[in-house]
Amino acid sequence: MPRSSGPVDSPARLSLISRHLAPDYPLNTPYTVERHPDNIDTSLLPKTQTRALTTDTTPANMSTQPEHATLLIPGPIEFDDAVLNSMSHYSESHVGPGFVAVFGETLSMLRKLFQTTDPSAQPFVLSGSGTLGWDLVAANLIEPGEDALVLSTGYFGDGFADCLKVYGANVTQISAEPGSRPQLPEIEKALSEKKYKLLTVTHVDTSTGVLSELKNLSELVHRVSPDTLVIVDGVCSVACEEIDFDAWKLDGVVTASQKAIGCPAGLSISMFSGRAIQAFQNRQTPPTSYFASMKNWLPIMQNYEAKKPSYFATPSPQLVRALHTALGQIVAQGVKERFAAHKAASDKIKAAVAALGLKQVAANPDDQAHGMTAIYLPENVKGAELLPKLASRGVVFAGGIHKAIAAKYIRFGHMGVSVLDPSRGHVEKAIKALEEGLSECGYQKA
Amino acid sequence: MPRSSGPVDSPARLSLISRHLAPDYPLNTPYTVERHPDNIDTSLLPKTQTRALTTDTTPANMSTQPEHATLLIPGPIEFDDAVLNSMSHYSESHVGPGFVAVFGETLSMLRKLFQTTDPSAQPFVLSGSGTLGWDLVAANLIEPGEDALVLSTGYFGDGFADCLKVYGANVTQISAEPGSRPQLPEIEKALSEKKYKLLTVTHVDTSTGVLSELKNLSELVHRVSPDTLVIVDGVCSVACEEIDFDAWKLDGVVTASQKAIGCPAGLSISMFSGRAIQAFQNRQTPPTSYFASMKNWLPIMQNYEAKKPSYFATPSPQLVRALHTALGQIVAQGVKERFAAHKAASDKIKAAVAALGLKQVAANPDDQAHGMTAIYLPENVKGAELLPKLASRGVVFAGGIHKAIAAKYIRFGHMGVSVLDPSRGHVEKAIKALEEGLSECGYQKA
Repeated sequence: MPRSSGPVDSPARLSLISRHLAPDYPLNTPYTVERHPDNIDTSLLPKTQTRALTTDTTPANMSTQPEHATLLIPGPIEFDDAVLNSMSHYSESHVGPGFVAVFGETLSMLRKLFQTTDPSAQPFVLSGSGTLGWDLVAANLIEPGEDALVLSTGYFGDGFADCLKVYGANVTQISAEPGSRPQLPEIEKALSEKKYKLLTVTHVDTSTGVLSELKNLSELVHRVSPDTLVIVDGVCSVACEEIDFDAWKLDGVVTASQKAIGCPAGLSISMFSGRAIQAFQNRQTPPTSYFASMKNWLPIMQNYEAKKPSYFATPSPQLVRALHTALGQIVAQGVKERFAAHKAASDKIKAAVAALGLKQVAANPDDQAHGMTAIYLPENVKGAELLPKLASRGVVFAGGIHKAIAAKYIRFGHMGVSVLDPSRGHVEKAIKALEEGLSECGYQKA
Repeated sequence: MPRSSGPVDSPARLSLISRHLAPDYPLNTPYTVERHPDNIDTSLLPKTQTRALTTDTTPANMSTQPEHATLLIPGPIEFDDAVLNSMSHYSESHVGPGFVAVFGETLSMLRKLFQTTDPSAQPFVLSGSGTLGWDLVAANLIEPGEDALVLSTGYFGDGFADCLKVYGANVTQISAEPGSRPQLPEIEKALSEKKYKLLTVTHVDTSTGVLSELKNLSELVHRVSPDTLVIVDGVCSVACEEIDFDAWKLDGVVTASQKAIGCPAGLSISMFSGRAIQAFQNRQTPPTSYFASMKNWLPIMQNYEAKKPSYFATPSPQLVRALHTALGQIVAQGVKERFAAHKAASDKIKAAVAALGLKQVAANPDDQAHGMTAIYLPENVKGAELLPKLASRGVVFAGGIHKAIAAKYIRFGHMGVSVLDPSRGHVEKAIKALEEGLSECGYQKA
């Protein structure tokens, strides 16, 4: 056989996958950003899984998932069949062209979900729980000894404060009574007393169902303390509550996959402004985490979005495929339509709760989340008694977790397919179960 | 509205025990381990998914996955159908009885995989990449200013050192030439010169395919520096190389899901000795990470293994289900049989590589891994030329990543179903593709 020592195959074939198929491309390290040529041939590997999970006898819109209790807790939520199908995608290289294209599109679609067109804004998708987003903020956007102002509307606001303290931030916390939120005058006073590196707010605190206002809050911060970064915990709000990243001048929103985005748990998802990235780059000291370091991840995210393979730590191709499917559905529907659909379902649920004579933890209608409802139990009904009665009717609600009132309320999550796909009938089923369950517990509307 | 300033000693973080189904159970905190009554009703939710992905016409042992290139990189690997099927499990509560039972069994099965029966040993399963395991070690088992001795056999040893430095450890590194490993006399000298809090060793460095010896190394450490913790990066070794956690007196092994364990990427999996947990508990300073904090995760893992729901951050039920399926297969086969099967396949592959006249990066047979083979390219063959020829034959190998020799070698991963299920024919297909590809590149054995 002739021995060829000349130039190799066509450039297109040569350009396949940086690491696996073209090892003499320049390597990137955690500390440099090396771009790869734009001529990746994505034709070799199939991009779409063809194994069908549905059968011909399945009517349109009917889920093919095995019968199971309807999960109506404030996350994880019920998932769409196509999203679950993506979870079982066959194995593929994390730096292969098929996956790189999917990851790149996923990052680009996140910009649409967050409503940002600012090219300096930067999405991150990391393997981890939503909590990892707190570390991402605390280890990169604030340095030990700097001041953070944490607005707390419950358990998760307190958690964000704890995380910031672990990384050495000096935390001032403004905490509201259960069911309410810190008010702007009090926040303005705090902002004018000290120069804070960042402010954090929990958009919807999953422990109380309290919705914080972002637009007016961000306006206040930019007016009173313009250098302070505005950081949002959007774990229970992204993809069900309006978030207008650019228009509201937000600097960071951290969230997770398993709530309104509608993808199984396991991904920390976030968006940071150019100003936040600049704050990171202006640090006097290095980031105080390795796995949650923007130094390590920033070049990787930029490369993937440019459809260029890159490596710091192995992502989960299956979870990213599922997120890609979920975001594709969100973008196809339109984010404003999605927010409106969640609001409509929430209005209906809250009316039904009121009709049952029940009160919400979030007393003021303006403070009530649209993806969940925290409901006070009637005086003589215990959650430990009621929740199993709902479960026996095929509906899973959550108990309370705000320590001051934990045993006094339950939580009803209404996000994603459960409100967007009326053919599932989840909302009606839940309201009926709640009504019957309460009645079985001896409750009668006064 | 209450307002607290300064470094507030905010309320201990509550753990959400059985919150969804029985909210008035006692709460645990990250600082205590509170056991709950054993009266959780697990009958409410179905535990087993009944949607079959295979059809009646599928012969036994034949994969029902769509046709795709065979992924033979050193992780992620090809997955078993049942494992992939578990990935698309319907949504369930992370604190519901069905999932809690599965997570508990998963943790218990890890003890069998690591061959530990010591009740003080502690498994962890966290959402994250394998890299998160380094943070778990660096943020919990060593304090800023303490000394770490890192043995490096390639890219990943260097990475572990970088991670330890980020968390403030004072790192001494012993690095071997590419393809070899630090020798015991040199290590003994280092151990006798300084008192190290811990020593790290990469069991198999994925960048070079070099296998480190653990048994003799651990004996040496326990003899010369008995207080030094022996920490193993087992990302590319757990479930394909012998690891006898108790007998070898190891203190920590960190790994990931997507290699020889055979579960999609997205889980950081680790085992720590009672001595390591004690070292964590004896810290003078708090852990320097929040998401990777043992303070936050230890009670959660202990509760789950005791089949008691617990919350710090939301785990991924789908990934944990898939890990449960993968571990069930591993335990059913027996770990010693699994190690032997990987060794047999590796011997066959290395013989085929030698028969082609090719040399391995790991020159000494005792230093060669059994789950991957790093192969030097013939002088006139480039990886960028050869790898696409393998891909066109449906086989995906990886290029080199050790910076000193990156363009000079390729990597062949042979773990999990690809070596355990002969009906797939992966090994034969890969060897044939390698032979044909080299020939097409003009290579002839001298």
